[in-house]
This record gives sequence, structure tokens and C-alpha cells, in this order.
Amino acid sequence: MRDLAGRLDLCSINTATLGYQTRIGETVDAVARAGFGAICPWRREMEGEDVAAVARRIRDAGLAVSGYCRSTYLPSADRATLDAAVADNRRAVDQAAALGAACFVMVVGSLPKGSRDLPAAWADVEEGTARLLEHAQDAGVRLALEPLHPMYAGDRSCLNTLEQALDLCARIEPEPAGAPWLGTAVDVYHVWWDPKLDAQVDCAGRTGRLFAFHVCDWLVPTRDLLLDRGMMGDGVIDLKRIRGMVEAAGYGGPVEVEVFSAEDWWRRPIPEILAACAERLEAVC
Amino acid sequence: MRDLAGRLDLCSINTATLGYQTRIGETVDAVARAGFGAICPWRREMEGEDVAAVARRIRDAGLAVSGYCRSTYLPSADRATLDAAVADNRRAVDQAAALGAACFVMVVGSLPKGSRDLPAAWADVEEGTARLLEHAQDAGVRLALEPLHPMYAGDRSCLNTLEQALDLCARIEPEPAGAPWLGTAVDVYHVWWDPKLDAQVDCAGRTGRLFAFHVCDWLVPTRDLLLDRGMMGDGVIDLKRIRGMVEAAGYGGPVEVEVFSAEDWWRRPIPEILAACAERLEAVC
Repeated sequence: MRDLAGRLDLCSINTATLGYQTRIGETVDAVARAGFGAICPWRREMEGEDVAAVARRIRDAGLAVSGYCRSTYLPSADRATLDAAVADNRRAVDQAAALGAACFVMVVGSLPKGSRDLPAAWADVEEGTARLLEHAQDAGVRLALEPLHPMYAGDRSCLNTLEQALDLCARIEPEPAGAPWLGTAVDVYHVWWDPKLDAQVDCAGRTGRLFAFHVCDWLVPTRDLLLDRGMMGDGVIDLKRIRGMVEAAGYGGPVEVEVFSAEDWWRRPIPEILAACAERLEAVC
Repeated sequence: MRDLAGRLDLCSINTATLGYQTRIGETVDAVARAGFGAICPWRREMEGEDVAAVARRIRDAGLAVSGYCRSTYLPSADRATLDAAVADNRRAVDQAAALGAACFVMVVGSLPKGSRDLPAAWADVEEGTARLLEHAQDAGVRLALEPLHPMYAGDRSCLNTLEQALDLCARIEPEPAGAPWLGTAVDVYHVWWDPKLDAQVDCAGRTGRLFAFHVCDWLVPTRDLLLDRGMMGDGVIDLKRIRGMVEAAGYGGPVEVEVFSAEDWWRRPIPEILAACAERLEAVC
């Protein structure tokens, strides 16, 4: 396992952690100034921006792009909506390519409004991902399926375990000629509880499908399902155990911090958040 | 699949659904008067009561006891605490026997305060359950391990999928001479999202380990991790699909309603809650 002490160059900041307080250009500079090696921006930050200019600013700041967040939800009430979601994701993949992102992070969505049909949602995710993959490959962008915690199965993602994501990868891209274009993003928040995590991370590594690794912490109690993630060290996740698994499985990419924390961290100044990320990455991850 | 229309005798009320508004005797009478066939009481309701008298009152009311809730948490900071938890659960099993409960429902607990060691918690659950099983068998009470939703992995249960619960059953009681004494309670709230639910329910049925079946609904949005469950039909769970699976796997016991709803149902009068349970059981389950 890598030693992260003094090695913020191995670490990335997902901009959601900073609560979208500034435009992406300023955010890039703040992350670079704090010593991190990479950044993971969101699509909402590209609205009204020249993506090529943002890409240049990131490069000039000396940052890598560990990922680009995130896909438009795939499960749809009808074919036209699914087609539109796929088209929208193709445009996002093009942005990911322009930014030089290591992967396009896919949060796949779940039940369309009024539906209770999980198998139909799973089918839409499979079809939509398969259709997007071809375009992603042409654009030179890897797709990282991010299984979300099962508490999001009703609305945000019907992909809820690493095993399920890997099964999907194996069905859609069964025998890649070279390195796979379809893989996974492993976020400790979503998978830490899984009794089969060890075997699944190992499988992801062996098949070359570990594209991203995100850290934060699970607070007890958790007061909000979406926006009450903890900073690393403030919760109950054994972060070193999971990073150990992930790196033993061959992952050598950045350790990316992604903390959604509306009532706590997002209310603090960006330099304070970045300093906390740096300190915790070195101390408890 | 059984038709529940006009068949409340096939249905049970978990008393938690009623918000503990009355003493157990009155609760028993209300449940019987509403036409249900069974009840599942909680240990807290036995405090200050004569358990034999409660058992008699339940019998006299013509109700079966679909289960008895629930175990003291097993994962412990030290041996003495684990020993005490096992002893406490033995006393609860004796109460379950006195009540004639179909099973003792086990919510196993998770990380002791200050711990991040999930594998240690799993080990305590395995040891504690194995030690309890012998006593349960002598008392003639089946133990039903209830996997809880992964959002409870930090505090209430480190047993989070039906597969994990069944693996535990198979390790602790690998080759039961007759019908198993160790099995599972399947609650739709905890397992509805699981992509492998179908296969796991089937496995539970084949191995004779389906001891209880609980219904409620998953609300979107869910505003509280513990006390914001929905009444059947108000959320996104495909209840008929899951009951279909469970009954196809051989389950013939009661369909038990368990709704934790501090801000909504618990504030209503008991007859109104019971009427809603009855209506929804017939209409959407």
C-alpha cells in the first residue's frame, strides 16, 4: 500500500467536496495551490464555460483529471427519453475527452417517476451503457460505473453493489481486445458495508476494471441520506483496510476525496476544506 | 401466490407499526378486533407485564404470534459484554417460547462504539448466534436472522444481505437433522433493492430457512434513516413481485406489517392505522 504522507500528488479533489462555491477556474487554482495532483470536476461547472479553456487551465495548473462527473440517468419511462439520455451522455463523454479525464463517472439512475419496476430499470441501464460504450471508445474515454449505496436504489441508482457493476461490465464488454473501456468507480461510502467487498475488489482489479477510488466517511448517526457524508476519520469506515484492498488489487490511480456535506463542510471556506482533506488523507486514509 | 383479499387471517401486525401507544393487552385486543390472524410483539412491551398472562391473552384473542422482536446486539467491545448479550438473548428466547412465537427475530447489531472493525463484528455475530442457537433449540424457538438494509451497517446490523444471512446459517447449522432452527426474516424494506434477491429467496426456501416475511414500503424521498418507512403502496417497492418470490419459495406463514413511521402513522389512532394496514394488504401486497 502506498504511503500518502507528503504525497498529495497521489490525491485528487472531487469538486463536489468544495460545495461549488466558486467558478471552476478558481476552484482549479485553489486545488493546485493546496498541492493536490488531480481534480474531478462536475458537468454543472462547465455550464457557461469554454471546456477547452477549462482543460487548458487544469493542465497549466499541473493537475490531472481523475474523472468527470456524472452521467444523465438512464432508466426511462419511454424509448424517446432513453434515447435522449444516451445522446446527452455522449455529449458529456465528449467533454470528458476534451478535459482529458481518466474516466466518465456513471451514476446510472433508478426507477422513473411512478415506476416500481426494478428489472426494467436494470434493463435500461444495460442497454444505455452498451450504446454509450461505443461512443466512449471512439472518444478515448473510459466509462466508470459507480455502484451507489442501496439507500439510493429508489431514485439515484439501481446499481448497488460492486458485484452487480462487474457483472454488468462482463456482460456488456465480455472480452475486451486490450484494456477494458468499461469499469467501475469504487467509493468507500457506497461499498464499505459489503461482506463480499474483498472478493469483488479483487475481481475488479484482476479484470482491469478499477478506474477510480473515492474516499469520505460514514457518520453515525447519518442525518440526511444524500448530504451528510463525513470527512475521512470522522466516521466508522476502515479506510486503510479498503485502500489496502484496492491497491493490492492493482489500483495505482489517485485517491479522490468526495464529501457531500451541506450542513458542515460546504459551509466552510475552500482553503479550510482543502487543508482538512490533505491532513486526513495523510493521517487516516 | 395466495390471494389476501378477505384473508386478514393470513396477516400479522408487528406492534411497532402502532407506535406503542397502548399497553400490550389493549394492543392485542385491537389487532384481534381488526381481524388479523397474528401479532408480533416487542420485548419492551413485556416490561412490567406477566409474560404468561400476555400469552394467554393473545391465545384467548385467537391470535398466533408470528415472531418476537428482537435480539440484544451481539458485537461487543470485550468478552464480558458479548457473554452478557448472549445471556440476555437467552432470557428473551425464553419469553418467545412462553409466547409461543414462531421465531425470535434477530437484529444482530454492528460496530461497538469506537470500532471500525467490521470483520470483528461479523465474528461476534457468528459466535453469539451459535451460542444462542443451542438454547433456542432446547426452548423450541427458531431464530430468524433479519438482514437489515446496508444503511444500518454502522450501528444496527452488520448483517446486510439475505445472502450473507444464509451463508451464516449454513456455517452455524450446516446439516440440521430435521427442519432448521436457524433461518431468516425477510423484510422487503431491507432487501428490495438486491439484484440477487430472487436467487437468495429461492435458496432460503429450498433450505427451509424462510421463517418470517415483513412488508412496508420505501418512500422517495426518505427523510429519516430509521423512522420514515412508508405504508404499503405509498412507496416504490414492488410488493407483489417480492411476495410472489417468497411464496414461490415455499413460504406459507403470515404476511407481517412492520412500519416505523414517527412523523406520520405513529401519530394516528390505532384503529385508523390497522384499517390502513388491512386495506393495503388486500389491495397492493
